Amino acid sequence: MINISTEDQQNIIETAHTLADAARRAVLPYFRSPGLRSDNKLSQGFDPVTAADRAAETEMREILKRDRPEDAVLGEEFGARAGSSGLTWVLDPIDGTRGFISGTPTWGVLIALSDVSGPRYGLIDQPYIGERFEGGFGRALYTGPQGGGALAVRDTVQLDEAVLFTTFPEVGTAEEGAAFRRVSEQVKLTRYGMDCYAYALLAAGQVDLVIEAGLNPYDIHAPIAVIEAAGGIVTDWQGGAAHPGGRIIAAATPALHAQALALLGG
Amino acid sequence: MINISTEDQQNIIETAHTLADAARRAVLPYFRSPGLRSDNKLSQGFDPVTAADRAAETEMREILKRDRPEDAVLGEEFGARAGSSGLTWVLDPIDGTRGFISGTPTWGVLIALSDVSGPRYGLIDQPYIGERFEGGFGRALYTGPQGGGALAVRDTVQLDEAVLFTTFPEVGTAEEGAAFRRVSEQVKLTRYGMDCYAYALLAAGQVDLVIEAGLNPYDIHAPIAVIEAAGGIVTDWQGGAAHPGGRIIAAATPALHAQALALLGG
Repeated sequence: MINISTEDQQNIIETAHTLADAARRAVLPYFRSPGLRSDNKLSQGFDPVTAADRAAETEMREILKRDRPEDAVLGEEFGARAGSSGLTWVLDPIDGTRGFISGTPTWGVLIALSDVSGPRYGLIDQPYIGERFEGGFGRALYTGPQGGGALAVRDTVQLDEAVLFTTFPEVGTAEEGAAFRRVSEQVKLTRYGMDCYAYALLAAGQVDLVIEAGLNPYDIHAPIAVIEAAGGIVTDWQGGAAHPGGRIIAAATPALHAQALALLGG
Repeated sequence: MINISTEDQQNIIETAHTLADAARRAVLPYFRSPGLRSDNKLSQGFDPVTAADRAAETEMREILKRDRPEDAVLGEEFGARAGSSGLTWVLDPIDGTRGFISGTPTWGVLIALSDVSGPRYGLIDQPYIGERFEGGFGRALYTGPQGGGALAVRDTVQLDEAVLFTTFPEVGTAEEGAAFRRVSEQVKLTRYGMDCYAYALLAAGQVDLVIEAGLNPYDIHAPIAVIEAAGGIVTDWQGGAAHPGGRIIAAATPALHAQALALLGG
Protein backbone atom coordinates (compact mmCIF):
# COMPACT_ATOMS: atom_id res chain seq x y z
CA MET A 1 0.00 0.00 0.00
CA ILE A 2 1.40 3.37 -1.04
CA ASN A 3 1.79 6.05 1.61
CA ILE A 4 -0.35 9.06 0.72
CA SER A 5 0.17 12.26 2.70
CA THR A 6 -2.81 14.01 4.29
CA GLU A 7 -2.23 16.90 1.90
CA ASP A 8 -2.27 14.59 -1.10
CA GLN A 9 -5.38 12.83 0.23
CA GLN A 10 -7.12 16.20 0.32
CA ASN A 11 -5.99 16.93 -3.22
CA ILE A 12 -7.26 13.53 -4.39
CA ILE A 13 -10.68 14.14 -2.78
CA GLU A 14 -10.95 17.58 -4.39
CA THR A 15 -9.89 16.18 -7.74
CA ALA A 16 -12.49 13.40 -7.52
CA HIS A 17 -15.25 15.95 -6.91
CA THR A 18 -13.96 18.09 -9.78
CA LEU A 19 -14.09 15.01 -12.03
CA ALA A 20 -17.61 14.14 -10.87
CA ASP A 21 -18.82 17.70 -11.45
CA ALA A 22 -17.35 17.66 -14.96
CA ALA A 23 -18.93 14.27 -15.69
CA ARG A 24 -22.33 15.57 -14.55
CA ARG A 25 -22.10 18.49 -16.94
CA ALA A 26 -20.99 16.24 -19.78
CA VAL A 27 -23.58 13.51 -19.27
CA LEU A 28 -26.80 15.28 -18.28
CA PRO A 29 -27.52 16.90 -21.66
CA TYR A 30 -27.71 13.37 -23.13
CA PHE A 31 -29.85 11.79 -20.40
CA ARG A 32 -33.44 11.25 -21.56
CA SER A 33 -32.60 13.09 -24.74
CA PRO A 34 -34.98 12.04 -27.51
CA GLY A 35 -32.12 11.69 -29.98
CA LEU A 36 -30.03 9.37 -27.82
CA ARG A 37 -28.38 6.65 -29.86
CA SER A 38 -26.54 3.62 -28.57
CA ASP A 39 -23.91 1.65 -30.42
CA ASN A 40 -23.48 -2.06 -29.91
CA LYS A 41 -19.96 -2.35 -28.52
CA LEU A 42 -20.08 -6.13 -28.73
CA SER A 43 -21.08 -7.83 -31.96
CA GLN A 44 -23.52 -9.95 -29.99
CA GLY A 45 -25.40 -8.99 -26.83
CA PHE A 46 -26.53 -5.54 -25.83
CA ASP A 47 -23.83 -3.23 -24.51
CA PRO A 48 -24.73 0.33 -25.46
CA VAL A 49 -22.14 3.03 -25.42
CA THR A 50 -23.40 6.51 -25.73
CA ALA A 51 -21.83 9.75 -26.77
CA ALA A 52 -22.37 10.74 -23.14
CA ASP A 53 -20.05 8.00 -21.93
CA ARG A 54 -17.26 9.18 -24.19
CA ALA A 55 -17.82 12.88 -23.55
CA ALA A 56 -17.62 12.38 -19.79
CA GLU A 57 -14.49 10.23 -19.86
CA THR A 58 -12.77 12.66 -22.22
CA GLU A 59 -13.53 15.54 -19.82
CA MET A 60 -12.24 13.58 -16.83
CA ARG A 61 -9.03 12.54 -18.58
CA GLU A 62 -8.31 16.15 -19.55
CA ILE A 63 -8.64 17.23 -15.92
CA LEU A 64 -6.37 14.42 -14.73
CA LYS A 65 -3.74 15.23 -17.37
CA ARG A 66 -3.72 18.81 -16.13
CA ASP A 67 -4.03 18.32 -12.36
CA ARG A 68 -2.59 14.84 -11.65
CA PRO A 69 -0.23 14.12 -14.56
CA GLU A 70 1.84 11.56 -12.62
CA ASP A 71 -1.10 9.27 -11.87
CA ALA A 72 -2.14 6.44 -14.19
CA VAL A 73 -5.69 6.26 -15.61
CA LEU A 74 -7.87 3.22 -16.32
CA GLY A 75 -11.14 4.14 -18.02
CA GLU A 76 -13.98 2.10 -19.44
CA GLU A 77 -14.06 3.89 -22.75
CA PHE A 78 -10.46 4.78 -23.55
CA GLY A 79 -8.42 2.15 -21.70
CA ALA A 80 -5.23 2.63 -19.70
CA ARG A 81 -2.71 5.48 -19.50
CA ALA A 82 0.51 4.77 -17.61
CA GLY A 83 1.73 6.92 -14.70
CA SER A 84 4.70 7.21 -12.35
CA SER A 85 3.09 7.79 -8.94
CA GLY A 86 1.88 4.24 -8.28
CA LEU A 87 -1.66 5.62 -8.12
CA THR A 88 -4.35 4.92 -10.72
CA TRP A 89 -7.64 6.72 -11.37
CA VAL A 90 -10.23 4.10 -12.25
CA LEU A 91 -13.13 5.67 -14.17
CA ASP A 92 -16.48 4.44 -15.39
CA PRO A 93 -18.24 7.48 -16.84
CA ILE A 94 -21.65 5.74 -16.98
CA ASP A 95 -21.99 2.54 -15.02
CA GLY A 96 -25.37 1.09 -15.96
CA THR A 97 -25.70 2.12 -19.60
CA ARG A 98 -28.83 -0.04 -19.97
CA GLY A 99 -30.42 1.93 -17.14
CA PHE A 100 -29.20 5.15 -18.73
CA ILE A 101 -30.81 4.44 -22.10
CA SER A 102 -34.03 3.45 -20.29
CA GLY A 103 -34.22 6.76 -18.43
CA THR A 104 -33.89 5.23 -14.94
CA PRO A 105 -31.91 7.28 -12.38
CA THR A 106 -29.96 4.19 -11.24
CA TRP A 107 -26.79 4.55 -13.33
CA GLY A 108 -23.81 6.39 -11.94
CA VAL A 109 -20.44 7.94 -12.57
CA LEU A 110 -17.79 5.84 -10.82
CA ILE A 111 -14.47 7.39 -9.84
CA ALA A 112 -11.82 5.63 -7.75
CA LEU A 113 -8.21 6.26 -6.81
CA SER A 114 -6.41 2.94 -6.39
CA ASP A 115 -2.93 1.61 -5.79
CA VAL A 116 -1.69 -1.93 -6.30
CA SER A 117 -3.43 -3.00 -3.05
CA GLY A 118 -6.84 -1.88 -4.35
CA PRO A 119 -9.10 1.18 -4.08
CA ARG A 120 -8.10 3.83 -1.52
CA TYR A 121 -10.86 6.36 -2.22
CA GLY A 122 -14.02 6.17 -4.32
CA LEU A 123 -17.07 8.13 -5.36
CA ILE A 124 -20.44 7.12 -6.83
CA ASP A 125 -22.35 10.00 -8.40
CA GLN A 126 -25.95 10.03 -9.69
CA PRO A 127 -26.13 13.21 -11.77
CA TYR A 128 -29.87 13.34 -12.48
CA ILE A 129 -30.92 13.05 -8.83
CA GLY A 130 -27.90 15.12 -7.80
CA GLU A 131 -26.70 12.51 -5.34
CA ARG A 132 -23.11 11.64 -4.40
CA PHE A 133 -21.66 8.91 -2.18
CA GLU A 134 -17.96 8.90 -1.28
CA GLY A 135 -15.64 6.88 0.91
CA GLY A 136 -11.98 6.59 1.86
CA PHE A 137 -9.22 8.53 3.67
CA GLY A 138 -11.42 8.53 6.77
CA ARG A 139 -14.53 9.83 4.96
CA ALA A 140 -17.87 8.08 4.41
CA LEU A 141 -20.37 10.69 3.26
CA TYR A 142 -23.33 11.33 1.00
CA THR A 143 -25.06 14.42 -0.32
CA GLY A 144 -28.39 14.47 -2.14
CA PRO A 145 -31.57 16.39 -2.86
CA GLN A 146 -32.81 16.05 0.72
CA GLY A 147 -29.46 16.90 2.36
CA GLY A 148 -26.53 14.74 3.34
CA GLY A 149 -24.73 12.97 6.15
CA ALA A 150 -22.61 10.01 7.16
CA LEU A 151 -22.72 6.67 5.39
CA ALA A 152 -22.88 3.54 7.54
CA VAL A 153 -23.95 0.00 6.72
CA ARG A 154 -26.66 -1.52 8.89
CA ASP A 155 -26.17 -4.39 11.33
CA THR A 156 -28.17 -7.18 9.66
CA VAL A 157 -26.66 -10.56 10.56
CA GLN A 158 -29.30 -13.09 9.41
CA LEU A 159 -29.95 -13.93 5.76
CA ASP A 160 -33.69 -14.16 6.39
CA GLU A 161 -33.67 -10.48 7.42
CA ALA A 162 -31.59 -9.34 4.48
CA VAL A 163 -32.49 -7.34 1.36
CA LEU A 164 -30.47 -8.53 -1.66
CA PHE A 165 -29.87 -6.68 -4.93
CA THR A 166 -28.52 -7.61 -8.32
CA THR A 167 -28.98 -5.98 -11.70
CA PHE A 168 -30.26 -8.86 -13.88
CA PRO A 169 -32.21 -11.95 -12.72
CA GLU A 170 -29.95 -14.19 -14.80
CA VAL A 171 -26.91 -12.66 -12.98
CA GLY A 172 -24.29 -14.24 -15.31
CA THR A 173 -23.76 -17.79 -16.57
CA ALA A 174 -26.25 -20.55 -15.72
CA GLU A 175 -23.93 -21.70 -12.94
CA GLU A 176 -23.61 -18.17 -11.54
CA GLY A 177 -27.38 -17.74 -11.71
CA ALA A 178 -27.89 -20.97 -9.76
CA ALA A 179 -25.42 -19.85 -7.09
CA PHE A 180 -27.20 -16.51 -6.81
CA ARG A 181 -30.56 -18.23 -6.39
CA ARG A 182 -29.23 -20.31 -3.49
CA VAL A 183 -28.74 -17.01 -1.64
CA SER A 184 -31.87 -15.37 -3.03
CA GLU A 185 -34.06 -18.20 -1.71
CA GLN A 186 -32.86 -17.49 1.85
CA VAL A 187 -33.24 -13.71 2.02
CA LYS A 188 -36.24 -11.59 2.99
CA LEU A 189 -36.40 -9.69 -0.28
CA THR A 190 -34.58 -9.74 -3.64
CA ARG A 191 -34.74 -6.74 -5.93
CA TYR A 192 -33.34 -6.08 -9.40
CA GLY A 193 -32.34 -3.35 -11.78
CA MET A 194 -30.40 -0.86 -9.67
CA ASP A 195 -26.98 -0.93 -11.43
CA CYS A 196 -24.27 0.69 -9.27
CA TYR A 197 -26.93 2.44 -7.20
CA ALA A 198 -27.37 -0.79 -5.23
CA TYR A 199 -23.82 -0.48 -3.87
CA ALA A 200 -24.54 3.07 -2.76
CA LEU A 201 -27.70 1.86 -0.98
CA LEU A 202 -25.67 -0.79 0.83
CA ALA A 203 -23.19 1.84 2.04
CA ALA A 204 -26.16 3.98 3.10
CA GLY A 205 -27.56 1.22 5.33
CA GLN A 206 -30.62 0.60 3.15
CA VAL A 207 -29.87 -2.86 1.75
CA ASP A 208 -27.72 -5.72 3.03
CA LEU A 209 -26.27 -7.66 0.10
CA VAL A 210 -25.32 -7.03 -3.52
CA ILE A 211 -24.23 -10.03 -5.61
CA GLU A 212 -23.13 -9.75 -9.24
CA ALA A 213 -20.98 -11.54 -11.79
CA GLY A 214 -18.97 -10.54 -14.84
CA LEU A 215 -17.87 -7.17 -13.48
CA ASN A 216 -14.91 -5.24 -14.79
CA PRO A 217 -12.41 -3.55 -12.45
CA TYR A 218 -13.84 -0.11 -13.30
CA ASP A 219 -17.32 -1.32 -12.24
CA ILE A 220 -16.27 -2.18 -8.72
CA HIS A 221 -13.30 -0.04 -7.54
CA ALA A 222 -15.43 2.94 -6.47
CA PRO A 223 -18.11 0.77 -4.80
CA ILE A 224 -15.42 -1.09 -2.83
CA ALA A 225 -14.01 2.16 -1.45
CA VAL A 226 -17.43 3.56 -0.54
CA ILE A 227 -18.74 0.36 1.07
CA GLU A 228 -15.56 -0.39 3.03
CA ALA A 229 -15.50 3.19 4.33
CA ALA A 230 -19.11 2.71 5.49
CA GLY A 231 -18.16 -0.45 7.39
CA GLY A 232 -19.13 -3.12 4.86
CA ILE A 233 -17.28 -5.90 3.08
CA VAL A 234 -16.66 -6.51 -0.64
CA THR A 235 -14.94 -9.66 -1.92
CA ASP A 236 -15.12 -12.11 -4.80
CA TRP A 237 -17.22 -15.28 -4.36
CA GLN A 238 -14.24 -17.08 -2.77
CA GLY A 239 -13.68 -14.35 -0.21
CA GLY A 240 -10.67 -12.96 -2.09
CA ALA A 241 -9.94 -9.45 -3.32
CA ALA A 242 -12.77 -7.86 -5.31
CA HIS A 243 -10.87 -5.17 -7.17
CA PRO A 244 -9.86 -7.39 -10.13
CA GLY A 245 -13.61 -7.70 -10.92
CA GLY A 246 -15.50 -10.84 -11.88
CA ARG A 247 -17.89 -12.38 -9.36
CA ILE A 248 -18.59 -9.91 -6.56
CA ILE A 249 -20.39 -10.02 -3.23
CA ALA A 250 -20.87 -6.94 -1.06
CA ALA A 251 -22.28 -7.38 2.44
CA ALA A 252 -23.21 -5.18 5.38
CA THR A 253 -21.70 -7.45 8.06
CA PRO A 254 -19.13 -10.27 8.35
CA ALA A 255 -21.85 -12.70 9.53
CA LEU A 256 -24.03 -12.03 6.51
CA HIS A 257 -21.02 -12.21 4.20
CA ALA A 258 -20.01 -15.62 5.57
CA GLN A 259 -23.51 -17.09 5.21
CA ALA A 260 -23.91 -15.87 1.64
CA LEU A 261 -20.40 -16.96 0.67
CA ALA A 262 -21.11 -20.50 1.88
CA LEU A 263 -24.19 -20.67 -0.36
CA LEU A 264 -22.42 -19.15 -3.38
CA GLY A 265 -19.70 -21.79 -3.10
CA GLY A 266 -22.36 -24.48 -3.37
CA MET B 1 -68.37 9.96 -18.63
CA ILE B 2 -69.24 12.84 -16.31
CA ASN B 3 -69.08 16.38 -17.68
CA ILE B 4 -66.47 18.36 -15.74
CA SER B 5 -66.37 22.13 -16.27
CA THR B 6 -63.10 23.83 -17.13
CA GLU B 7 -63.26 25.59 -13.78
CA ASP B 8 -63.72 22.33 -11.93
CA GLN B 9 -60.90 20.73 -13.97
CA GLN B 10 -58.61 23.52 -12.79
CA ASN B 11 -59.72 22.96 -9.21
CA ILE B 12 -59.07 19.23 -9.52
CA ILE B 13 -55.56 19.83 -10.88
CA GLU B 14 -54.77 22.25 -8.06
CA THR B 15 -56.16 19.84 -5.48
CA ALA B 16 -54.07 16.98 -6.88
CA HIS B 17 -50.89 19.06 -6.52
CA THR B 18 -51.89 20.07 -2.99
CA LEU B 19 -52.36 16.39 -2.16
CA ALA B 20 -49.01 15.46 -3.70
CA ASP B 21 -47.23 18.24 -1.80
CA ALA B 22 -48.81 17.05 1.46
CA ALA B 23 -47.85 13.45 0.73
CA ARG B 24 -44.24 14.48 0.08
CA ARG B 25 -44.05 16.22 3.45
CA ALA B 26 -45.65 13.25 5.20
CA VAL B 27 -43.53 10.55 3.56
CA LEU B 28 -40.02 11.99 3.24
CA PRO B 29 -39.16 11.97 6.97
CA TYR B 30 -39.62 8.19 6.88
CA PHE B 31 -37.69 7.46 3.69
CA ARG B 32 -34.27 5.92 4.40
CA SER B 33 -34.90 6.46 8.09
CA PRO B 34 -32.85 3.98 10.13
CA GLY B 35 -35.81 3.20 12.38
CA LEU B 36 -38.21 2.34 9.55
CA ARG B 37 -40.38 -0.63 10.39
CA SER B 38 -42.66 -2.53 8.07
CA ASP B 39 -45.63 -4.62 9.09
CA ASN B 40 -46.68 -7.69 7.18
CA LYS B 41 -50.13 -6.79 5.88
CA LEU B 42 -50.68 -10.30 4.58
CA SER B 43 -50.15 -13.30 6.82
CA GLN B 44 -47.98 -14.83 4.12
CA GLY B 45 -45.84 -13.07 1.57
CA PHE B 46 -44.09 -9.75 1.95
CA ASP B 47 -46.31 -6.68 1.71
CA PRO B 48 -44.87 -4.01 3.96
CA VAL B 49 -46.95 -1.09 5.10
CA THR B 50 -45.11 1.71 6.70
CA ALA B 51 -46.15 4.47 8.99
CA ALA B 52 -45.32 6.73 6.05
CA ASP B 53 -48.05 5.12 3.94
CA ARG B 54 -50.67 5.77 6.57
CA ALA B 55 -49.47 9.26 7.44
CA ALA B 56 -49.62 10.33 3.79
CA GLU B 57 -53.07 8.91 3.11
CA THR B 58 -54.44 10.47 6.30
CA GLU B 59 -53.12 13.88 5.21
CA MET B 60 -54.60 13.51 1.74
CA ARG B 61 -58.01 12.42 3.04
CA GLU B 62 -58.14 15.42 5.39
CA ILE B 63 -57.49 17.76 2.46
CA LEU B 64 -60.18 16.09 0.35
CA LYS B 65 -62.71 16.22 3.19
CA ARG B 66 -62.09 19.95 3.46
CA ASP B 67 -61.72 20.93 -0.21
CA ARG B 68 -63.71 18.32 -2.17
CA PRO B 69 -66.29 16.91 0.29
CA GLU B 70 -68.68 15.73 -2.45
CA ASP B 71 -66.12 13.45 -4.13
CA ALA B 72 -65.68 9.81 -3.15
CA VAL B 73 -62.27 8.48 -2.06
CA LEU B 74 -60.66 5.09 -2.67
CA GLY B 75 -57.34 4.70 -0.88
CA GLU B 76 -54.93 1.80 -0.47
CA GLU B 77 -54.67 2.10 3.28
CA PHE B 78 -58.09 3.20 4.49
CA GLY B 79 -60.49 1.90 1.83
CA ALA B 80 -63.48 3.66 0.28
CA ARG B 81 -65.46 6.75 1.31
CA ALA B 82 -68.69 7.42 -0.59
CA GLY B 83 -69.43 10.69 -2.37
CA SER B 84 -72.22 12.38 -4.28
CA SER B 85 -70.43 14.00 -7.25
CA GLY B 86 -69.81 10.83 -9.29
CA LEU B 87 -66.08 11.53 -9.03
CA THR B 88 -63.63 9.43 -7.01
CA TRP B 89 -60.11 10.25 -5.83
CA VAL B 90 -58.02 7.10 -6.15
CA LEU B 91 -54.97 7.26 -3.86
CA ASP B 92 -51.92 5.09 -3.34
CA PRO B 93 -49.72 6.96 -0.86
CA ILE B 94 -46.68 4.77 -1.53
CA ASP B 95 -46.81 2.59 -4.62
CA GLY B 96 -43.77 0.32 -4.45
CA THR B 97 -43.39 -0.24 -0.71
CA ARG B 98 -40.68 -2.86 -1.33
CA GLY B 99 -38.70 -0.24 -3.22
CA PHE B 100 -39.40 2.26 -0.45
CA ILE B 101 -38.03 0.01 2.31
CA SER B 102 -34.97 -0.73 0.14
CA GLY B 103 -34.17 2.96 -0.27
CA THR B 104 -34.62 3.03 -4.06
CA PRO B 105 -36.12 6.22 -5.54
CA THR B 106 -38.54 4.22 -7.73
CA TRP B 107 -41.68 4.25 -5.55
CA GLY B 108 -44.24 6.98 -5.98
CA VAL B 109 -47.32 8.71 -4.70
CA LEU B 110 -50.23 7.95 -7.04
CA ILE B 111 -53.21 10.30 -7.21
CA ALA B 112 -56.04 9.98 -9.73
CA LEU B 113 -59.45 11.53 -10.22
CA SER B 114 -61.79 9.01 -11.84
CA ASP B 115 -65.41 8.64 -12.81
CA VAL B 116 -67.24 5.44 -13.68
CA SER B 117 -65.59 5.46 -17.14
CA GLY B 118 -62.09 5.41 -15.63
CA PRO B 119 -59.34 7.90 -14.75
CA ARG B 120 -59.78 11.45 -16.03
CA TYR B 121 -56.65 12.99 -14.48
CA GLY B 122 -53.65 11.46 -12.73
CA LEU B 123 -50.35 12.30 -11.11
CA ILE B 124 -47.26 10.22 -10.28
CA ASP B 125 -44.94 11.89 -7.77
CA GLN B 126 -41.44 10.79 -6.70
CA PRO B 127 -40.80 12.80 -3.53
CA TYR B 128 -37.11 12.00 -2.97
CA ILE B 129 -36.01 13.02 -6.45
CA GLY B 130 -38.58 15.81 -6.49
CA GLU B 131 -40.13 14.64 -9.74
CA ARG B 132 -43.77 14.83 -10.81
CA PHE B 133 -45.58 13.47 -13.89
CA GLU B 134 -49.20 14.46 -14.60
CA GLY B 135 -51.75 13.89 -17.32
CA GLY B 136 -55.38 14.62 -18.14
CA PHE B 137 -57.70 17.55 -18.96
CA GLY B 138 -55.42 18.42 -21.86
CA ARG B 139 -52.22 18.37 -19.82
CA ALA B 140 -49.23 15.98 -20.13
CA LEU B 141 -46.37 17.46 -18.12
CA TYR B 142 -43.41 16.64 -15.90
CA THR B 143 -41.25 18.61 -13.52
CA GLY B 144 -38.02 17.37 -11.95
CA PRO B 145 -34.57 18.28 -10.63
CA GLN B 146 -33.29 19.18 -14.12
CA GLY B 147 -36.38 21.16 -15.16
CA GLY B 148 -39.61 20.09 -16.81
CA GLY B 149 -41.58 19.90 -20.02
CA ALA B 150 -44.15 18.01 -22.05
CA LEU B 151 -44.67 14.27 -21.76
CA ALA B 152 -44.94 12.27 -24.98
CA VAL B 153 -44.51 8.57 -25.66
CA ARG B 154 -42.03 7.60 -28.36
CA ASP B 155 -42.92 6.04 -31.70
CA THR B 156 -41.48 2.53 -31.35
CA VAL B 157 -43.50 0.10 -33.45
CA GLN B 158 -41.39 -3.11 -33.48
CA LEU B 159 -41.02 -5.43 -30.51
CA ASP B 160 -37.34 -6.02 -31.31
CA GLU B 161 -36.71 -2.29 -30.82
CA ALA B 162 -38.68 -2.06 -27.58
CA VAL B 163 -37.55 -1.64 -23.95
CA LEU B 164 -39.86 -3.56 -21.59
CA PHE B 165 -40.25 -3.08 -17.84
CA THR B 166 -41.85 -5.03 -15.04
CA THR B 167 -41.24 -4.97 -11.30
CA PHE B 168 -40.53 -8.65 -10.47
CA PRO B 169 -39.09 -11.30 -12.83
CA GLU B 170 -41.78 -13.78 -11.73
CA VAL B 171 -44.45 -11.16 -12.70
CA GLY B 172 -47.39 -13.05 -11.09
CA THR B 173 -48.56 -16.65 -11.31
CA ALA B 174 -46.55 -19.24 -13.26
CA GLU B 175 -48.93 -18.78 -16.20
CA GLU B 176 -48.59 -14.99 -16.09
CA GLY B 177 -44.81 -15.32 -15.88
CA ALA B 178 -44.79 -17.55 -18.95
CA ALA B 179 -46.93 -15.06 -20.89
CA PHE B 180 -44.60 -12.25 -19.89
CA ARG B 181 -41.56 -14.21 -21.06
CA ARG B 182 -43.13 -14.71 -24.50
CA VAL B 183 -42.99 -10.93 -24.88
CA SER B 184 -39.68 -10.53 -23.07
CA GLU B 185 -37.96 -12.92 -25.49
CA GLN B 186 -38.88 -10.67 -28.42
CA VAL B 187 -37.87 -7.26 -27.11
CA LYS B 188 -34.51 -5.49 -27.28
CA LEU B 189 -34.16 -5.08 -23.51
CA THR B 190 -36.08 -6.13 -20.39
CA ARG B 191 -35.51 -4.36 -17.10
CA TYR B 192 -36.88 -4.90 -13.60
CA GLY B 193 -37.50 -3.21 -10.29
CA MET B 194 -38.91 0.21 -11.18
CA ASP B 195 -42.34 0.03 -9.47
CA CYS B 196 -44.66 2.81 -10.73
CA TYR B 197 -41.66 4.75 -12.02
CA ALA B 198 -41.71 2.54 -15.13
CA TYR B 199 -45.10 3.97 -16.14
CA ALA B 200 -43.74 7.49 -15.77
CA LEU B 201 -40.79 6.57 -17.99
CA LEU B 202 -43.17 5.24 -20.64
CA ALA B 203 -45.11 8.51 -20.61
CA ALA B 204 -41.80 10.37 -20.85
CA GLY B 205 -40.81 8.50 -24.02
CA GLN B 206 -37.97 6.57 -22.39
CA VAL B 207 -39.35 3.01 -22.46
CA ASP B 208 -41.90 1.29 -24.68
CA LEU B 209 -43.77 -1.37 -22.71
CA VAL B 210 -44.74 -2.07 -19.10
CA ILE B 211 -46.40 -5.41 -18.33
CA GLU B 212 -47.56 -6.42 -14.85
CA ALA B 213 -50.08 -8.68 -13.14
CA GLY B 214 -51.98 -8.64 -9.87
CA LEU B 215 -52.46 -4.88 -9.75
CA ASN B 216 -55.11 -3.15 -7.67
CA PRO B 217 -57.17 -0.26 -9.06
CA TYR B 218 -55.23 2.28 -6.96
CA ASP B 219 -51.96 0.99 -8.54
CA ILE B 220 -53.02 1.80 -12.08
CA HIS B 221 -55.52 4.70 -12.21
CA ALA B 222 -52.89 7.45 -12.08
CA PRO B 223 -50.54 5.69 -14.57
CA ILE B 224 -53.45 5.25 -17.02
CA ALA B 225 -54.23 8.98 -16.95
CA VAL B 226 -50.60 10.01 -17.36
CA ILE B 227 -49.79 7.53 -20.15
CA GLU B 228 -52.98 8.18 -22.13
CA ALA B 229 -52.38 11.93 -21.90
CA ALA B 230 -48.87 11.35 -23.29
CA GLY B 231 -50.29 9.40 -26.25
CA GLY B 232 -49.87 5.83 -25.03
CA ILE B 233 -52.23 2.92 -24.42
CA VAL B 234 -53.07 1.01 -21.23
CA THR B 235 -55.34 -2.06 -21.23
CA ASP B 236 -55.68 -5.43 -19.57
CA TRP B 237 -54.14 -8.47 -21.28
CA GLN B 238 -57.32 -8.97 -23.37
CA GLY B 239 -57.32 -5.39 -24.61
CA GLY B 240 -60.12 -4.37 -22.22
CA ALA B 241 -60.29 -1.54 -19.70
CA ALA B 242 -57.30 -1.40 -17.34
CA HIS B 243 -58.78 0.63 -14.50
CA PRO B 244 -60.25 -2.37 -12.62
CA GLY B 245 -56.65 -3.60 -12.16
CA GLY B 246 -55.35 -7.14 -12.58
CA ARG B 247 -53.17 -7.94 -15.60
CA ILE B 248 -51.95 -4.73 -17.21
CA ILE B 249 -50.09 -3.80 -20.37
CA ALA B 250 -49.01 -0.26 -21.17
CA ALA B 251 -47.57 0.48 -24.60
CA ALA B 252 -46.17 3.47 -26.45
CA THR B 253 -47.95 2.73 -29.75
CA PRO B 254 -50.95 0.74 -31.05
CA ALA B 255 -48.66 -1.44 -33.20
CA LEU B 256 -46.50 -2.41 -30.24
CA HIS B 257 -49.57 -2.97 -28.08
CA ALA B 258 -51.08 -5.33 -30.63
CA GLN B 259 -47.91 -7.40 -31.03
CA ALA B 260 -47.42 -7.76 -27.27
CA LEU B 261 -51.10 -8.54 -26.69
CA ALA B 262 -50.97 -11.38 -29.23
CA LEU B 263 -48.05 -12.95 -27.35
CA LEU B 264 -49.63 -12.48 -23.91
CA GLY B 265 -52.75 -14.25 -25.10
CA GLY B 266 -50.61 -17.24 -26.06
